This record gives sequence, structure tokens and C-alpha cells, in this order.
Amino acid sequence: MENKIADLEIKMINEVAGNFSRHPSQLNQLMEADAEIIDLKNKNIDYLVVKTDGLHEEISEKLYEDPFLIGWMSVTATLSDLAAVAAEPLGLLLSLQLTKNTNRKWLGAFKKGINTACSFYGVNVLGGDTNLDSVFSVSTTGIGTITDTRPLLRKPLLPGELLYATGKLGIGNAYAYFRFFNSSVNVNYQPVARLTESTFIKKYATACIDTSDGFFPALSVLSTINRVGIKITTPLQRLLDKTTLNVYQYSGLPAWMFLAGPHGEYELLFSIPPAMRNRFEQACTDWEWEPILIGEITEGDSVQFSSEEMEIQCSPSVIANLFTESNGDIQCYFENLTRQHKLWSQQ
Amino acid sequence: MENKIADLEIKMINEVAGNFSRHPSQLNQLMEADAEIIDLKNKNIDYLVVKTDGLHEEISEKLYEDPFLIGWMSVTATLSDLAAVAAEPLGLLLSLQLTKNTNRKWLGAFKKGINTACSFYGVNVLGGDTNLDSVFSVSTTGIGTITDTRPLLRKPLLPGELLYATGKLGIGNAYAYFRFFNSSVNVNYQPVARLTESTFIKKYATACIDTSDGFFPALSVLSTINRVGIKITTPLQRLLDKTTLNVYQYSGLPAWMFLAGPHGEYELLFSIPPAMRNRFEQACTDWEWEPILIGEITEGDSVQFSSEEMEIQCSPSVIANLFTESNGDIQCYFENLTRQHKLWSQQ
Repeated sequence: MENKIADLEIKMINEVAGNFSRHPSQLNQLMEADAEIIDLKNKNIDYLVVKTDGLHEEISEKLYEDPFLIGWMSVTATLSDLAAVAAEPLGLLLSLQLTKNTNRKWLGAFKKGINTACSFYGVNVLGGDTNLDSVFSVSTTGIGTITDTRPLLRKPLLPGELLYATGKLGIGNAYAYFRFFNSSVNVNYQPVARLTESTFIKKYATACIDTSDGFFPALSVLSTINRVGIKITTPLQRLLDKTTLNVYQYSGLPAWMFLAGPHGEYELLFSIPPAMRNRFEQACTDWEWEPILIGEITEGDSVQFSSEEMEIQCSPSVIANLFTESNGDIQCYFENLTRQHKLWSQQ
Repeated sequence: MENKIADLEIKMINEVAGNFSRHPSQLNQLMEADAEIIDLKNKNIDYLVVKTDGLHEEISEKLYEDPFLIGWMSVTATLSDLAAVAAEPLGLLLSLQLTKNTNRKWLGAFKKGINTACSFYGVNVLGGDTNLDSVFSVSTTGIGTITDTRPLLRKPLLPGELLYATGKLGIGNAYAYFRFFNSSVNVNYQPVARLTESTFIKKYATACIDTSDGFFPALSVLSTINRVGIKITTPLQRLLDKTTLNVYQYSGLPAWMFLAGPHGEYELLFSIPPAMRNRFEQACTDWEWEPILIGEITEGDSVQFSSEEMEIQCSPSVIANLFTESNGDIQCYFENLTRQHKLWSQQ
């Protein structure tokens, strides 16, 4: 009997974790230690950066069904947070909750999503943990370092500063619209964590946040933490990326709705002091890159913007809370958006 | 309308994460950055240690129901892995999956378990992530550092070396027996991560593993990785802690079964080379501490032990796999144990 039994546990771990490439400074191979050990000798690290981020509702609500996308996003979402604080990623830890029905083909595509993202970003999986659960989910912990520069926080943000985004916006909500309301619009969603842009903007920016939870929700956080308002000077339609613009035109929905929902595009929002503006924009031109000017920071606590012909001024939390108040019910959320739009239209 | 709405999202995060004490070197307060930032300037760290460990099956199978215990274990399990590699903990990240039914009182007791453990170990929660799921679960990432010593791995382990445990064994399985089979035995379970012992043994030990997944499963991992066998020279009954010894006598089950299951006691198993034995044992005496001698490392790939009057020799994976083969079904696992015991009895 003894001879026929291999160690099933070790087999399972190898099956799940076996083909991730390892960090060159990782001391231990798979299974060789109780924890993952990274050699940092002779590296003068100023700050350690850590972040845990999970994909749960996205999977249980079937916003994400494609296993490759789930793998890609479990890497991208966490790296986006490292990018927002201007950290260089050191590696990732994965906490996987498999179900009894998770089959090998599905798991293979999921791992391919992780591996593709890891090689795209030049990042390694350091280790992980596999559990059995009633629904598939994944939580990713990102480990990063900062050396020779300061970290970017969501503050300070002062009236008069300019707010930029690393790219055009809306694809996260356009994708949710495609998944939940209209499968004929066909939106491809595979956002990129803005690590490269982060290494550039960190020399100029004073505050930064990613739009992983959506654009208006990010503004709501910035406004609350810094006790400032935000005047969006660019008409919202011009903030939308090409795909979202198509969906916008096709759907007839107002532009602000594509920036309101909690499913974001993983761009970075960052502030530049007015005195730095020329230097920053010149450096962007030299780097052959064009960030998107959103608007400027104001006194007060409201956000001002124009969506189509409407001029709107409200607390940004009003927009962020439309989702929170729906308790995650997508249909109810859509009704909240519509009711809010009506309210503004009648003003 | 706007004035009456607070930011519900921020409120929820504060509700869950608000009262964890923060690390003195943490740069950002709650919500102030996209990731957690720890100042490491002027700290010459040799190794960074990271580990993700989840409590899922323990909760879904109702092995853990008491929210305080779940909180305590979500800290202890991860710190035990840091202890096993001789790391000093820097902090923890929590990935919480709440359900719609998670009530405030339950959450309060869970947080009390986390806070009690954190102050017991002198460790802080650095950050986390909260999701909504169909069952409550928690994954914890531990971050640690090693400076001025080498890390302990599960290897090398050489024939002739002595194997010790930081404490007596069996309570994890005695607790599972209490929870699943006999609620009249009343076993208190609140294991301690052996961080203090780790700082002592790291000067002498060559390899180390914790018994979080049980004693025989740990031996199975050590045997597989190092291609060695293990001769347990101490009769198994004498390895059992006092509570387990009571349950052992009361239940009439053989001693080996209390060391076989995958629910461990979070002791450390570590090896001492024979040439180091006297120095190590003298140091233990000076420290007024007595580790438990398990036995010695042998050539081959089998484990030898005596349980009651039986002398057993088998591959340690045979014992570890009795659980794996039951697919997590506790009743089936108990039958596997009984069948295995009969097989040995008939030999």
C-alpha cells in the first residue's frame, strides 16, 4: 500500500504553484521553507510597501468569468496600488480559494493569466496558499520597495493644484455595462497597472490614487481625506477612452455614468502644483507622453463637472454612494444612477 | 440630499479596520495611501520574509466557530510560519471575506481575537481588504525581517541529527476530536506561535518546520524534501500534552492518531546536529526551558515509532495522506485512521 501513495498534498501544491517563475533573490524553492525568504542584503531600501487586494465580488457577481482575465486582474489590481504609491514591485503572494469543481483547464487558463501578467510587468509570484471554498476567489498581496525617492500618498492636495490622469477613463464601467446590460457592445477589458508612468510622475506629483474603484469614487476619497473640492475643467465626454466613447454613443447614457461605477480602469490620478506645471508638461513632451488634464483642486468639498449640456455641482460622495447604497445589486444601482440623473436634470 | 449622506464606504472600512493599532514606522494612516508604507530607513535588513495563510476549511467545516478563536488563529497561524524561518514579525495584512449576515457583535469578538493576539505578540495590522462573500473567511499575510542571522529552512536535515519540538503535541487533533466527535471532553485550544523560542533555537538549529498542519504531516514534508527517514525514540504517549493525554485516555484511541491529523499545535520541529547537542541542551537549561526530544534523523525514507505496544515503520506520507484521501470528509478520515490502525495491528 505504501509504495503506491505519493504525497498528494505536495502534488496539489505543485499543480497550482509549480510553474510560476521565481524571484532571483528568493532563497527558498517551493516547499523548502515555512515562509518565503527574499535576500535583501546590500539593498538599501527606504520603504517597504505592502498591499492585499481580493477579487471576490467581481467573480461571484460574474463581472469576471474568463479565467485568464481573473488571473490577469489578480496581478494588475495589486500592482496598480504599488504604482500609486510609487513603489517598485518585489513580488506577489496569492491566496487561492478553489472549489471542488475547479477543473484543470480552467485553472490552466487562470495561471496563464497570472503568468502573462507577471512577465508583462517583470514580477514574480513569491508564494501562496490554496484553500477549498464554496466559490472561487483570489486575494493577492503585493510587496514593493521604494528607494531614493519619497512615497506618493493620497495627500497633500491643495486648492490650485492641477489634477491629471495617466490615461483616458471609463473602460471599467463600459465593461460592466457590456457584461450586465448589453452583450452586443463587446468591450475588451484588460487594464494595465501604470508602473511605468508611476516612475515618471513620482518626480512631479504631490498626491496620487488609482481609479481601481472608479473615477468619481477616487475623487470622493481625495476630497474627504484632503478636505478639498475638485473642478473638472475638461468636459466628461472628452475624458472617455475610445471604446467607452463608442459604448457611450451607442447606449445613449450620460457620460458621468461611465465614470461613476466602482469598477475602474486602473489609471492613476495625480496632482501637480501650478508652479510645477510647465516643467511637468515639458517633461511629458520630452518623454513623448500625454497625460489627461482632469481639472483643478478647489476650496470646499464639492465636485463640479459638465456632462453633456448639464453643469453639475455636488459632493463626490453622492456619486460614490449610489453604488454603496444599492448593496451590490446591479439593477438597483442602475436605478439609482437614473434617479440621480433625473434629479440633476430637473434642477 | 447631499448633506445627509456620509461616505458609507469609508465608514465601513473604519468599522472593520478602525481600531487596530498601527505600526510606529508606518507612514500612512488609514485611507491615506493606496498601499501600506513602512519606513525602513537606517534598518539594515538582510532578508524579507513573507507568508500568506488562510482560514477557510477550518471555518466552513465548523472546526472554528468562536469568532475570538478565529481572530486569534488568523494572527497565530501566520506568525508561526515566520517563527519557523526565524524571522521577526513586522506586521500583518488581513483579507477579510464578510458575509451579509456578519453581525457587529460577532465582528467585534473576531477583532478582539486579532487585537488580543497582536498585543500578545507585539505585532501590528498594517492594512487589509474587505470583501463580501457567501461564507466568512480570512487570509492573513505576515511580513517579517531577518537581520544578522541566517533564515531557517526545512532543510538541510542529515542522518544522525536530533529532532526536537518546542512543546508537547496533540492539542490540535484533540480539539478536532472534541469538536467533531465528542463534545463532552471539552478541550481549550488557543495555541501560541513560538516566536520567543524561535529567537533561541535559531542559534543552534539546522532545519525547522512548524506543526500547523499536524506532526506526522510535518515529518512527511521533512522526509520528502530531505530524502531522509525519522526514528521517533520517545514513545508517542510521552509526546502528548496534558490535555491531549486526558483525551487520549478517555477516548481509548491510539496515541499516533492524535499526531496524525492536519490540525496542528503550532509547535516548531527543529534539528540539532549531534556535535551541537551538549551545547544546545546546556543553553536550554540555562534558559530554564526544556524542548521535547522527538528522535533522530535516519537514512531511508520511513518513520519509525511506537504507539502503545506497537512498533510501526512506514512512509510518513502514508499517515499524512489518510486525510488528503478523505477529501476533507471528517467521518471518512476517521474511518481511514481506524483502517490503518487495524492494518498495523494485524502485521
